[in-house]
Amino acid sequence: MIQRIDRFAVELPPPSEPDPDGAAAVQELMGGKFGEMSTFMNYTFQSFNFRGRQGARPFYDLVANIAAEEFGHVELVATAINTMLTGASPTSNGSAQSPLATKNPLADVKGIGNPQHFLAGGQGALPQNSQGRPWNGDYVFCSGDLVEDLTHNFFLETGARNNKLKVYEMVEHPAARALTGYLLVRGGVHQIAYARAIEKLTGADLTKMFPTPRIPTDRIPECKPHIERGDHLRLYRFSPNDYQELAAVFNGPNPETGEALVVVDEAPEGVPPRDLPPQPAVFAPDYAPEEIAEIATKLRQTAGLPSEPTGLVADLKAQTKRSTKKATSRSKGRSSR
Amino acid sequence: MIQRIDRFAVELPPPSEPDPDGAAAVQELMGGKFGEMSTFMNYTFQSFNFRGRQGARPFYDLVANIAAEEFGHVELVATAINTMLTGASPTSNGSAQSPLATKNPLADVKGIGNPQHFLAGGQGALPQNSQGRPWNGDYVFCSGDLVEDLTHNFFLETGARNNKLKVYEMVEHPAARALTGYLLVRGGVHQIAYARAIEKLTGADLTKMFPTPRIPTDRIPECKPHIERGDHLRLYRFSPNDYQELAAVFNGPNPETGEALVVVDEAPEGVPPRDLPPQPAVFAPDYAPEEIAEIATKLRQTAGLPSEPTGLVADLKAQTKRSTKKATSRSKGRSSR
Amino acid sequence: MIQRIDRFAVELPPPSEPDPDGAAAVQELMGGKFGEMSTFMNYTFQSFNFRGRQGARPFYDLVANIAAEEFGHVELVATAINTMLTGASPTSNGSAQSPLATKNPLADVKGIGNPQHFLAGGQGALPQNSQGRPWNGDYVFCSGDLVEDLTHNFFLETGARNNKLKVYEMVEHPAARALTGYLLVRGGVHQIAYARAIEKLTGADLTKMFPTPRIPTDRIPECKPHIERGDHLRLYRFSPNDYQELAAVFNGPNPETGEALVVVDEAPEGVPPRDLPPQPAVFAPDYAPEEIAEIATKLRQTAGLPSEPTGLVADLKAQTKRSTKKATSRSKGRSSR
Amino acid sequence: MIQRIDRFAVELPPPSEPDPDGAAAVQELMGGKFGEMSTFMNYTFQSFNFRGRQGARPFYDLVANIAAEEFGHVELVATAINTMLTGASPTSNGSAQSPLATKNPLADVKGIGNPQHFLAGGQGALPQNSQGRPWNGDYVFCSGDLVEDLTHNFFLETGARNNKLKVYEMVEHPAARALTGYLLVRGGVHQIAYARAIEKLTGADLTKMFPTPRIPTDRIPECKPHIERGDHLRLYRFSPNDYQELAAVFNGPNPETGEALVVVDEAPEGVPPRDLPPQPAVFAPDYAPEEIAEIATKLRQTAGLPSEPTGLVADLKAQTKRSTKKATSRSKGRSSR
Amino acid sequence: MIQRIDRFAVELPPPSEPDPDGAAAVQELMGGKFGEMSTFMNYTFQSFNFRGRQGARPFYDLVANIAAEEFGHVELVATAINTMLTGASPTSNGSAQSPLATKNPLADVKGIGNPQHFLAGGQGALPQNSQGRPWNGDYVFCSGDLVEDLTHNFFLETGARNNKLKVYEMVEHPAARALTGYLLVRGGVHQIAYARAIEKLTGADLTKMFPTPRIPTDRIPECKPHIERGDHLRLYRFSPNDYQELAAVFNGPNPETGEALVVVDEAPEGVPPRDLPPQPAVFAPDYAPEEIAEIATKLRQTAGLPSEPTGLVADLKAQTKRSTKKATSRSKGRSSR
Amino acid sequence: MIQRIDRFAVELPPPSEPDPDGAAAVQELMGGKFGEMSTFMNYTFQSFNFRGRQGARPFYDLVANIAAEEFGHVELVATAINTMLTGASPTSNGSAQSPLATKNPLADVKGIGNPQHFLAGGQGALPQNSQGRPWNGDYVFCSGDLVEDLTHNFFLETGARNNKLKVYEMVEHPAARALTGYLLVRGGVHQIAYARAIEKLTGADLTKMFPTPRIPTDRIPECKPHIERGDHLRLYRFSPNDYQELAAVFNGPNPETGEALVVVDEAPEGVPPRDLPPQPAVFAPDYAPEEIAEIATKLRQTAGLPSEPTGLVADLKAQTKRSTKKATSRSKGRSSR
Repeated sequence: MIQRIDRFAVELPPPSEPDPDGAAAVQELMGGKFGEMSTFMNYTFQSFNFRGRQGARPFYDLVANIAAEEFGHVELVATAINTMLTGASPTSNGSAQSPLATKNPLADVKGIGNPQHFLAGGQGALPQNSQGRPWNGDYVFCSGDLVEDLTHNFFLETGARNNKLKVYEMVEHPAARALTGYLLVRGGVHQIAYARAIEKLTGADLTKMFPTPRIPTDRIPECKPHIERGDHLRLYRFSPNDYQELAAVFNGPNPETGEALVVVDEAPEGVPPRDLPPQPAVFAPDYAPEEIAEIATKLRQTAGLPSEPTGLVADLKAQTKRSTKKATSRSKGRSSR
Repeated sequence: MIQRIDRFAVELPPPSEPDPDGAAAVQELMGGKFGEMSTFMNYTFQSFNFRGRQGARPFYDLVANIAAEEFGHVELVATAINTMLTGASPTSNGSAQSPLATKNPLADVKGIGNPQHFLAGGQGALPQNSQGRPWNGDYVFCSGDLVEDLTHNFFLETGARNNKLKVYEMVEHPAARALTGYLLVRGGVHQIAYARAIEKLTGADLTKMFPTPRIPTDRIPECKPHIERGDHLRLYRFSPNDYQELAAVFNGPNPETGEALVVVDEAPEGVPPRDLPPQPAVFAPDYAPEEIAEIATKLRQTAGLPSEPTGLVADLKAQTKRSTKKATSRSKGRSSR
Repeated sequence: MIQRIDRFAVELPPPSEPDPDGAAAVQELMGGKFGEMSTFMNYTFQSFNFRGRQGARPFYDLVANIAAEEFGHVELVATAINTMLTGASPTSNGSAQSPLATKNPLADVKGIGNPQHFLAGGQGALPQNSQGRPWNGDYVFCSGDLVEDLTHNFFLETGARNNKLKVYEMVEHPAARALTGYLLVRGGVHQIAYARAIEKLTGADLTKMFPTPRIPTDRIPECKPHIERGDHLRLYRFSPNDYQELAAVFNGPNPETGEALVVVDEAPEGVPPRDLPPQPAVFAPDYAPEEIAEIATKLRQTAGLPSEPTGLVADLKAQTKRSTKKATSRSKGRSSR
Repeated sequence: MIQRIDRFAVELPPPSEPDPDGAAAVQELMGGKFGEMSTFMNYTFQSFNFRGRQGARPFYDLVANIAAEEFGHVELVATAINTMLTGASPTSNGSAQSPLATKNPLADVKGIGNPQHFLAGGQGALPQNSQGRPWNGDYVFCSGDLVEDLTHNFFLETGARNNKLKVYEMVEHPAARALTGYLLVRGGVHQIAYARAIEKLTGADLTKMFPTPRIPTDRIPECKPHIERGDHLRLYRFSPNDYQELAAVFNGPNPETGEALVVVDEAPEGVPPRDLPPQPAVFAPDYAPEEIAEIATKLRQTAGLPSEPTGLVADLKAQTKRSTKKATSRSKGRSSR
Repeated sequence: MIQRIDRFAVELPPPSEPDPDGAAAVQELMGGKFGEMSTFMNYTFQSFNFRGRQGARPFYDLVANIAAEEFGHVELVATAINTMLTGASPTSNGSAQSPLATKNPLADVKGIGNPQHFLAGGQGALPQNSQGRPWNGDYVFCSGDLVEDLTHNFFLETGARNNKLKVYEMVEHPAARALTGYLLVRGGVHQIAYARAIEKLTGADLTKMFPTPRIPTDRIPECKPHIERGDHLRLYRFSPNDYQELAAVFNGPNPETGEALVVVDEAPEGVPPRDLPPQPAVFAPDYAPEEIAEIATKLRQTAGLPSEPTGLVADLKAQTKRSTKKATSRSKGRSSR
Repeated sequence: MIQRIDRFAVELPPPSEPDPDGAAAVQELMGGKFGEMSTFMNYTFQSFNFRGRQGARPFYDLVANIAAEEFGHVELVATAINTMLTGASPTSNGSAQSPLATKNPLADVKGIGNPQHFLAGGQGALPQNSQGRPWNGDYVFCSGDLVEDLTHNFFLETGARNNKLKVYEMVEHPAARALTGYLLVRGGVHQIAYARAIEKLTGADLTKMFPTPRIPTDRIPECKPHIERGDHLRLYRFSPNDYQELAAVFNGPNPETGEALVVVDEAPEGVPPRDLPPQPAVFAPDYAPEEIAEIATKLRQTAGLPSEPTGLVADLKAQTKRSTKKATSRSKGRSSR
């Protein structure tokens, strides 16, 4: 089972200039062979199918726990895409009448980006790659053989870092840059984790392969804050009580920097999501979103809930302010929420 | 983000007679168009892409929260398949020498079931349907239009119940029956939730459509304990702090029984998973799993962890004992763990 | 069996400015999950597989008959695409010599629209969606369970209306607008038909869900003539003798306007198709179409047929003149042909 | 547009011993690369996209008209599959209670045939091939170049005849044999038609290639009645008024027998379909079909329709009696209906 | 088995202005239904599966040998694409530091061409078509029936010539033009070969169908040198000792020109490939290719190999100089290498 | 370019008891994600797209050369499948009349194995996996980044060895066993080659990972003769003149046995293929193969070729006799042919 937490591991910038072509490119990190759906689903299936897990507990815990972090990465990729698509159609109907008050609200995006972002979806992320091809189960490798699965995972993270760098190089939109800067650092940690697991099981030392591909993350501005904060060293434990044995595998020096790897015994505190604005021209969430809001308010009242929405969301307009707290200074509790 | 909890919402029986043909059929509930990967991914993407969620909070909370429960259903389907495949190849090598001590350990499953269960995987679940075709992103509907997405979700749960019943009718293996009995009840609750959401938004009353398809769950032995326990009335909140507004939508009578629907303010307590045994003939998790166990023990020692595995797993052999505690008697805490 | 009638249910405008990007977008209405191939094939398979149809005759007749209308919609989508692609390559070779007289007749469409419109086809429609992905049989739902199939069909028409509106919003080409204006109205009728069928079978009243999505068709200029003519109220019977029981289901008020629904006991009279001009640069129908015409003339003579082509086609250049005859004034016969 | 006629071109036998494995094989003739969906869709798209059709009228008429016949072939393949699946689950519930009165009504077909015939559909045909893979738009060839399209069509019919023979050789069920016997003869006519069209356009004489593949249809018992009736010589015109110029292409001797080819100026009279019985265990059309029948009867009354179903269906049990009327003796009218 | 020869059958021009949109279009000739992967794989599988090949030796030799030539065509298409992509990202990093010295080296190709050329690959060819869809095994036809397979092959070459012409018409890049000019001529020879094989087996004379499609290759500038050299008449034998019986089928006049067809008893001499330059921004072959070169040099030394690379490559910058030697003047040996 | 040699690298046994289910399983090694089409196409594309190859010559040579060997592996897999399918339908028609003399020659394989082996093909191999799904281009990884591509290749060979072992364990047919015994040994060599290449480029030592998966090839009877012959140590150079620098990478000890790796400066001598017999019931190569043989004989005469077929094929019935010549004793020439 999972529990869902309505927070993001990292803050993404608010919507700015829409970038439908960029959003189509970022889809590679969603539904591509090396996208986050792949990392999430690969590790998830490997953990589901793990036989003799009690005897191999440190390895089971590692795979199962990284799977949990990957869900958050899928979420971040979706959010970056949604942010980049915001504003690509008129955000207001110009009058009280209808979305058709603007006669051809999608004319500007004809021939631009992924057409299903507009024709099928409400300017939202799709489980597809940069070519509009759907993610599929053939992207999951789960042989059941532990060393083999780890070898795959090490390779998968390698390929994923390649794709992330390429998207970074292609798309300048702040949301894409913030996303790829973060994912490059976290993907690097997962790559190390799998390399270390192979080492523990076979004795082979993969240290000298790092970084692979040879991405100088320390010189990428959007990676830097995460490195400064120490996120290139930490594996978070994404569970209230389980996956305790991470530290049996994830330890020793970071192969690039020599600094000591650290298991953080809880999930990152995270930040609340932004509430991306309606796009009434594509009926998201309706052509008259205010009517839904009225209904919601009444429903809350009837149910004895507060009259205001209870969910915590970030200020849509506020610029990103990344805290650079060091790992050691993070408080255990979440009382601030 | 998610937190992962290494427990199942419901207990599945231990391995018994292997049933590879049955396991191939159960795959429809995993990677079929109406399988649990579809319900999980549909609601997850809809929640990721939800625009104006603050104004539509009760509906956002509903979709996002059901998505979280669906992860656990994917897990259960995988576990049922793994249980049914256990023992389909020799569980021991007969000697200390090699898996090849048994010359043709997979000869018995040639032409039986899904060949990739054995040729590609370690007798484990695949992200495929009953025909061995991979799940793909085309199975996700996410228009961004709230009423439309809910209409889809109501239909999706309808189709999913059909498939679950059919698998029930085809596969007699205890794990398949326990799985489908449970999923029929829980899927019914989700179907009600979406029907109610449509009703709240449009005024249309779908009550008279229930049950659809017309499955008499109250007469299905494997559904009964869940109905007796009240699980056909409850929506669990799968989050420590979020998705508080479920009760604004999920209320009123169950359209089939007239009993009052209930929001349970936490996830089910669940049960620990069984540790399914190695299948060394297919190298899961290795052809000599005991070597991995030795390594794991040493790693734990080095890391200062307990010498015994810390993860909690159920006794592999113990027969299922379903508690039938009523919802009201469930303790808030989980101190028993 | 079918009989084919070489007429269109509605007139589409003649070719004007070519719009390859727009044509690529309109493909969503052809081969997309919610395109006309899907509506056609879903209802067709449901009618083929209908068990116990005699006992459920009104419902069988409804599904089978709407399937027949959908064929005409597939035809219209193809025609709109073909119209929009006309002129995208030179329509004449500039000399008697060869299509290559113009050295690079497709250079202008490099990187524009669906490349297979030019590289594989003769500037013609493809069974693909807006991303160039082929339609496939997974888009067909046919559970055999009548209520379930109708639920699906209601949802399918809902999604289809979404896509039609989006194409309308994106593509301003007159052919696309004429197409979507017509299809929005006809799709709305089918949506009502399925809602009514569900109501008759279960008692659930879906009236309040209309319109869904909330498209104000009465304010869309290209929908208006069809509404004024009453086409939002009529279900045509597309068979000389069969499917007589439509009226047992399709009756009562239109849920949006309150006007009475009407079964028209024959197919629409329709209009002859335009004969879209050759595109010799892409060898459609040849690089020297006049040679084919010569051969055809001789073949006709040899066969004792008239020397002129017998097929009735519309004047290619004539502007669309929509008759707005009311339903009541339509003559039964087709003597005017 | 089309008009649909609720009759089959040929009579198929009533349900007998169910044959799920055979039904799975027959799917190749439905959704395989060379199945009837392919012939239907290829010629349909070619006719939709035909540029300069007035100048090439005899060829346009040929392609468009054969497309219409192919719809009937898709229908026949579906019917054969449905016939073969009838009875594969219990046709009665053994008691008034529920389909679950029989505890595991699908256990007998576990691991047999196409699992989606039962798990997804109501024992009905699917748009898939013999491997359970969906038909897709890549199977359509439509270059717009007339000679090229005809070359393709000649090849397509060649491949289709191969597949039909193979299914004949594999599946002994009477429905499969009746189907393939008929389709081999009709496919042969289409093959001749395309060969003749190529000959008329280019002068190349393909006569000597026949039969290709070298199937001795005159020695196949299930082909014989169709040959005796002359159906290997006739091209029917499937339209009330259109496609008049078939005879300009389809003439001369049959390349195998030397007999004169004939254009029949109307569709075959056909026979009414059988009403295949409900399969309540798979909820087709419901688990209590008699309730639907009651509703239908009331709806008919309310609508002023006859109290009995108006649709004409064949006696389910009557054995096939093939008339062997010669073409010349076919009456123009259909007064017998 | 094969032996690989690191030479191209024809020289392609050096990189010039990059053309990512053009490269995306040329992919149709790689991974499209009628691309070179299809011709290669079709004939390869037909030769692998050829039953009774000794009795049908001339035909087996023909198919097996053309398969071998097609490998070289796949290679040429890849090379043309790679040539066209060269320079689409900065070829130098501007400094010794990193590829990220140029902050957004792929920004110029956002929304241009096939995104995976950059996001997944190192500006290299993909096994995909012009829409970015992967080549798949459904494009292979291998019935085992010789006449049928040859009919298919004739059609395949026909469709392939269509696609090649279209790419020629769309893409003006010198590499694309050189490629298509060559392939049109060679494809024409294969088309003749299969037509002749059908003629030998059945007696049908396909001569009058040529050229089909009616491409006037003699007027296409990029075809001319190959025709002048006689390459439209020659079938090369791509084997040191095998496939001796080509001449039993491939003989008689070229159906277009009447000149005599010729079997050349060896492979073309060919030209060395160009060594396309690194694209460090996409890490091909690394972000610091010179480090790899250093390692390679050392490895050569250690292995006792020459200090300079032994492979023969063409001068990257040299303009294409097509020799126009007549077939008769080709020397048997390759001493010039 | 390639030259094709009509010999196999290793001898496979003659047809014996047909095994359609086994043949379907072996398809995993053909068209599966880790099948030989994948290894062949991955390395082929990587070599086509290799930028800066002159600077990285030893690595280019390695990849390009292994690609060439993989073609022979695809051929062997096809041959094993064809061998296993031989005899699955009657090999004679029982009379001179027709294949239909046996009324239902494929009835025995209904529901057995891959249906397209019979319905679409002439009992021949397909580019599909064990589930009948076509191989597709998504299985090719070609990042252009050398270290990354090598990492992939190491992983690919790892996964391929897993699949080969599983097929070995499942299928006892002598052809399958001979095939997998050989491929396990050769795949192991390729795995070592890629590991060594990574080591040379990065310094990481993967030696301790071997064997991975932990397959004790030395105890597998069908692997033994190849190991005894030294084929676990040799990399053959599959080119008359090119790929000279293999030895710069492929050297040092075999990580499993410590013996020295060897580059053999030519392709294996190989053995002639068997001429698998016709299967007239499936028209392979015709229903009357002797007619083709007569035609072939005449064609040879007309062309001045020997009256007997020139191709060298092995005696169909002769049992396999594996020579166990040591590498050192292999003669350079092939005069024995």
